[in-house]
Amino acid sequence: MTDRELVAEKLDQAAETLDDLETDLWLTFCRETEMLGEPALPFVLGYDVVWPTMVLVTADGRTATVLGENDVAGAREMDVHNEVYAYEESLEPTFRELLRKIDPEEIAINFSTDHKTADGLSHGMYHRLRGHLEGTGYEDRLISAEEVVGTVRGVKTETERERIGQAAELTEELLAEMQTAWRPEWTERDVQSYVQERIAERGLEPSWSGDYCPTVDAGSAAPVGHTMPGDRTLPPGEVLHIDFGVRYEYYAADIQRLYYRPSEGDPDPPTELESAFGDVRAALEAGFEVLEPGVYGYEVDAAARETIVDRGRPEFNHGFGHEIGRYAHDGGTLLGPRWEPYGEAPSTTVRAGEVYSIELGVATDYGYVGLEEMVEVTPEGPEYVLEPQREFRILEPPQ
Amino acid sequence: MTDRELVAEKLDQAAETLDDLETDLWLTFCRETEMLGEPALPFVLGYDVVWPTMVLVTADGRTATVLGENDVAGAREMDVHNEVYAYEESLEPTFRELLRKIDPEEIAINFSTDHKTADGLSHGMYHRLRGHLEGTGYEDRLISAEEVVGTVRGVKTETERERIGQAAELTEELLAEMQTAWRPEWTERDVQSYVQERIAERGLEPSWSGDYCPTVDAGSAAPVGHTMPGDRTLPPGEVLHIDFGVRYEYYAADIQRLYYRPSEGDPDPPTELESAFGDVRAALEAGFEVLEPGVYGYEVDAAARETIVDRGRPEFNHGFGHEIGRYAHDGGTLLGPRWEPYGEAPSTTVRAGEVYSIELGVATDYGYVGLEEMVEVTPEGPEYVLEPQREFRILEPPQ
Repeated sequence: MTDRELVAEKLDQAAETLDDLETDLWLTFCRETEMLGEPALPFVLGYDVVWPTMVLVTADGRTATVLGENDVAGAREMDVHNEVYAYEESLEPTFRELLRKIDPEEIAINFSTDHKTADGLSHGMYHRLRGHLEGTGYEDRLISAEEVVGTVRGVKTETERERIGQAAELTEELLAEMQTAWRPEWTERDVQSYVQERIAERGLEPSWSGDYCPTVDAGSAAPVGHTMPGDRTLPPGEVLHIDFGVRYEYYAADIQRLYYRPSEGDPDPPTELESAFGDVRAALEAGFEVLEPGVYGYEVDAAARETIVDRGRPEFNHGFGHEIGRYAHDGGTLLGPRWEPYGEAPSTTVRAGEVYSIELGVATDYGYVGLEEMVEVTPEGPEYVLEPQREFRILEPPQ
Repeated sequence: MTDRELVAEKLDQAAETLDDLETDLWLTFCRETEMLGEPALPFVLGYDVVWPTMVLVTADGRTATVLGENDVAGAREMDVHNEVYAYEESLEPTFRELLRKIDPEEIAINFSTDHKTADGLSHGMYHRLRGHLEGTGYEDRLISAEEVVGTVRGVKTETERERIGQAAELTEELLAEMQTAWRPEWTERDVQSYVQERIAERGLEPSWSGDYCPTVDAGSAAPVGHTMPGDRTLPPGEVLHIDFGVRYEYYAADIQRLYYRPSEGDPDPPTELESAFGDVRAALEAGFEVLEPGVYGYEVDAAARETIVDRGRPEFNHGFGHEIGRYAHDGGTLLGPRWEPYGEAPSTTVRAGEVYSIELGVATDYGYVGLEEMVEVTPEGPEYVLEPQREFRILEPPQ
């Protein structure tokens, strides 16, 4: 699930983060992670577990993990934690002993109402944790680990940034192959299958569920959103919209690209399409320009949102940008409006070392004109990970 | 993630189950399910969602789903729910209106301390749910949906049983190909790669994380457990142990098989190995025989455990059997001892229509002798899904 080197890097980063935040202890408590998911596990352990498992990281840089006997071999082989404990029947005695030694003022645990990547603790497991703590005096010291998780997950190490860059380049390579191979009789499903075969050929995997990756919208008849590709072909004079990314060594890319199929006798897109493209580009650029360390997520969203509305277009009904990392939607700070479903995620600030995908689109009579670009936030400001799309790519059937 | 037909079948089954249990309403509340997982979603919705989402099923057979605008297209296309609502900013008004109409005595929600498949609600989402319910009068009517989930997930429809059978047969086919192709110079990693290439060739996927699927243990030097394959080759006179399964149309197989590499001049396994194999078989058979509707999970485990101990072998340090379905470890009733990490899972009863994998092993000087068989529980009693392994399979290098 992750390589040893990356876990070691991220555990170091976690200890530094805890020290900065003056939090003594970060506890990740999970079980059956293949089914239930624990978004922090790839950073603090590196592989899936079956039985209830704890990973503890302290501000003074010590790490310990407590695992069921059948889950422990991975941690022993990886050998990145200071202490690795296996249990046969219950982790409680070891956990209580560790707590006595650490004696934390606060225990940051893996739950959050607002940040999904910090919310891996299920409600049932929360009950169990309360049980394990009963009578220890630590029951009332639980806080959300969302700040720790936000930094460890969001602020990429150099290794992580390189992998994301590689994933982005591979994504464009596969799209270039699709463009060359495209034929007018292809349905949305055919486009998807072609790209998925290229993914499999290279031993890669899609950035999100294969049902929607790539998402392919052919022309004005396609519904917008996370929809499965259908039997629609692309009429001449309309737009093919693709939302796509592949993962490279666990790290994802996520971009949207636009293709135009010329109509008979006129190679150029109609003015309405060019105008929509220009408005989308302008809004992306407006958001890009303010994407600097320290800005609030909602401020970046507002810059793009105001631009598109000022140009007489409807508001987009989603956040402008999201962090990208192991997942295409990697959580952390959201470049979105302060709408209820997003909770506090748009109200945190952007940090140097984070990578975002920014996106929006407008519906036209020729199809959905949506673009998405990946941006790295450096201490000096935003940098595009790939060359942004600046004009429609033209689909010509093979000669 | 699932096909329309199956979701329709399972929603019908859910309504019947609620009626049997005299529970008015089953509510599944989730978000970002690709990252965080909601084990019930494939049965009640059929695809992953990003924004907070609710699926409601009532005992009188009505179903409703409330989704963010960008998640709703799938539910509209699938068209299996009586009511599909999209929201732009908050699902609360629609949820409250639905509650007023249903006016449930109890609301069974997706959390459980003991059953992982019923525990998809994160602790952060539980807080949100409490917020949505505040002042409605329904705040104190929340109960665990573990009984509903246990039945809907555990009791397979005919479609599901067929798929599991198909997955099991494909698993044996791939193992047969491996056996034919095997060469003495192959490391554990080579065996795994060979099998994984065959999986990819057929467009299948492994039943669990590719890092461990298949798990390959070559001879006495291999550590036992969920370990990654290493550089070990199989010495003559030792045992190759494989734990493996593939998924077919979302349904998993999970078996263990044993191979013996003859030593020079003696084609037969030594007596110690044959005796270990016989003891493991006998314990499997003892468990199999009592695996009938109505038996408690821990009783089945005890039958196998007593048999292996009576034969002078150490107890196995895991549960004897687990349900199998969409996952290899599919949750529900566990055929295990009443140990703390298992919670109440071994204290529920086996039902007709469930499918289990039963497994155990013993360590020997020639390698790990572990077997695992899949069993369907019919109203008349247990039936093996595949022919059980009754003797070592012999590895001969290609001529």
